[in-house]
Amino acid sequence: MDRRSFLRTSTVGGAAAAASTLAAPAIAQGRITWRMVTTWPRNFPGLGVGAQRLADRITAASDGQLTVEVFSAGEMVPALQSLDAVIDGTAEMSHGAAYYWQNKSTALSFFTGVPFGMTSRELTAWVRYLGGQELWDEVYDQFGVQGFLSGDTGTQTGGWFKNELTSLADIQGMRFRTPGLGGQVWQRMGASVTNMAGGEIFQALQSGALDAAEFVGPYNDLALGFYQVCQHYYTSSFNEPGLATEIVVDKAKYQALPANLQAIVKDVAQAEYDQVASDFYANDPRALRTLVEDHGVILHSEFPDDIMQAAADAAKEVLGGVINSDDDLTSRVGQSFLDAVRLLRTRTEGTDQVFTTARSRFMDYSDL
Amino acid sequence: MDRRSFLRTSTVGGAAAAASTLAAPAIAQGRITWRMVTTWPRNFPGLGVGAQRLADRITAASDGQLTVEVFSAGEMVPALQSLDAVIDGTAEMSHGAAYYWQNKSTALSFFTGVPFGMTSRELTAWVRYLGGQELWDEVYDQFGVQGFLSGDTGTQTGGWFKNELTSLADIQGMRFRTPGLGGQVWQRMGASVTNMAGGEIFQALQSGALDAAEFVGPYNDLALGFYQVCQHYYTSSFNEPGLATEIVVDKAKYQALPANLQAIVKDVAQAEYDQVASDFYANDPRALRTLVEDHGVILHSEFPDDIMQAAADAAKEVLGGVINSDDDLTSRVGQSFLDAVRLLRTRTEGTDQVFTTARSRFMDYSDL
Repeated sequence: MDRRSFLRTSTVGGAAAAASTLAAPAIAQGRITWRMVTTWPRNFPGLGVGAQRLADRITAASDGQLTVEVFSAGEMVPALQSLDAVIDGTAEMSHGAAYYWQNKSTALSFFTGVPFGMTSRELTAWVRYLGGQELWDEVYDQFGVQGFLSGDTGTQTGGWFKNELTSLADIQGMRFRTPGLGGQVWQRMGASVTNMAGGEIFQALQSGALDAAEFVGPYNDLALGFYQVCQHYYTSSFNEPGLATEIVVDKAKYQALPANLQAIVKDVAQAEYDQVASDFYANDPRALRTLVEDHGVILHSEFPDDIMQAAADAAKEVLGGVINSDDDLTSRVGQSFLDAVRLLRTRTEGTDQVFTTARSRFMDYSDL
Repeated sequence: MDRRSFLRTSTVGGAAAAASTLAAPAIAQGRITWRMVTTWPRNFPGLGVGAQRLADRITAASDGQLTVEVFSAGEMVPALQSLDAVIDGTAEMSHGAAYYWQNKSTALSFFTGVPFGMTSRELTAWVRYLGGQELWDEVYDQFGVQGFLSGDTGTQTGGWFKNELTSLADIQGMRFRTPGLGGQVWQRMGASVTNMAGGEIFQALQSGALDAAEFVGPYNDLALGFYQVCQHYYTSSFNEPGLATEIVVDKAKYQALPANLQAIVKDVAQAEYDQVASDFYANDPRALRTLVEDHGVILHSEFPDDIMQAAADAAKEVLGGVINSDDDLTSRVGQSFLDAVRLLRTRTEGTDQVFTTARSRFMDYSDL
């Protein structure tokens, strides 16, 4: 029985047994091996590839003093048990997205992305300079773990639709795949929202079980072939203006590492935040070009105004519910997020967006 | 004579003598000490602070195996001799901005930022995924050094003006402080452009030697007190849509480092790219609030349309000159940059900007 299938069997047999057998990180010749479980399939563009690269970079920077072994979704535990695997000691580290763990704390949504919320740069400003990390630590302290940002897809796309949307009436009862708080927003607007794993979407669209679906963006969506069943692609999402990934570490084991290895974990996670964002930024538009030029996809940059207004109203209700939560910590996270986005949007909208809007109006590069 | 004044004297006395005395990095007990010269004053918000933090993070992650000592502008060599100090062996590393070295190669402008060019996220996508780093390496190979991105101010502000600008006529002969290719753009539009160090701007505005000036953004500009002499602040720059900083290392000494220390230098530089960008993103809008609420500054987000169109036309002429350079490498860098920005702007303008524009139209957070 090889190590991997042993681990898988142990976990299926009982997480507690696995935890007691495997709790201590392997230490040989003063070297430490950490097992990192991920929520992504192996080699999944952007995210799965990024998880592997992050592990390799920690191993390389520490000269193998901290060697990180990667277990992709399902190899040690199912994707959505990754955080539990760290909590129960089956793994020392996980790579995923904080909003997968909303059942543990709704506050975790804010560290991934929420409807009409923060762009990726706004999120890092909040987390690193405006109190976000400290609040995130408070949330995860309840579970004995610590989170660090580890990547971002950037603003995602709005989704794939069999029919063009002309008004709010068109989405009444529309069977739409979209998860999380964003799903709640579409539900309030009148859509019939379901969630399912990425790999199941194509077939559901094809069979007619779904009328529409959103997943990530062109880089991932092209690979999944949605263009074969939906012709209309909305290129901007109000639900996922940024989607940050995280690594989560067992806090006690992290703090027991020598200071330089703690620094390496943190530095590499932050470097990877930039790397993953750059990967999506470079590869999304290449994939989008292929979708249009080779597959005849019809692009729409914006949903109709009445849909956007209804979405903003619904997002306010959903976010308001979180902010007014009975749970004090959730409420404080939501309030801090709101204070930060109110401040940060003045820069995004008053400086960055003014530039890109001006560039699109005045600068035509085609004749250079 | 303390070490610092010794170094300063040596450099003043003759860079060659300093180089021969100090060329070999200090090695004690298998540890390596690198001297990093910077183009920033010590504790300069965002950038000087970032240079020190980058040095400290390399030292910490390597457990002191690679200890980086920081010499701020003027402490070992004047700011604008930082690259030469690395080339001649006086220092192993520098922290600055590639466009300071345009006299060595005009191509270097593209790795900092150019008029109507790339945002920070577009720049990292180009450098890390679309061939930018490889071309940058070719440019610096000519000097035996290598560059890595190490920070970004994000989109800068348009500048401080004594009088509001109502049309292109208002800037004819206007004495304006703005450096680099952006300076060439304003010059072509009819302004009388001069460059001077940040510390000299205030007095020149006060004495009437300048009518207007642009420097970085609110975070730095507030500290320099420009609001005391100029009431009109334009919050978005077409000239510096992103401004990336770099570290430059002596390539032979870098390649002679053990692989893990090479990895640490690269990882920390990339982590700092994100950290510095987050710092500006968080602190610019706080400073802007102070400028408006405490100092009565009048904000304008956009220059008048005729100024914008003239600026775009002038930028095309300036960039066209670089791209059609007789120097093959400069021309190839320019062409690669253009190909990348044409591709990447489709994402920025078709996805990111659509979201932020929609958020500003539909999402009012004030009643949440």
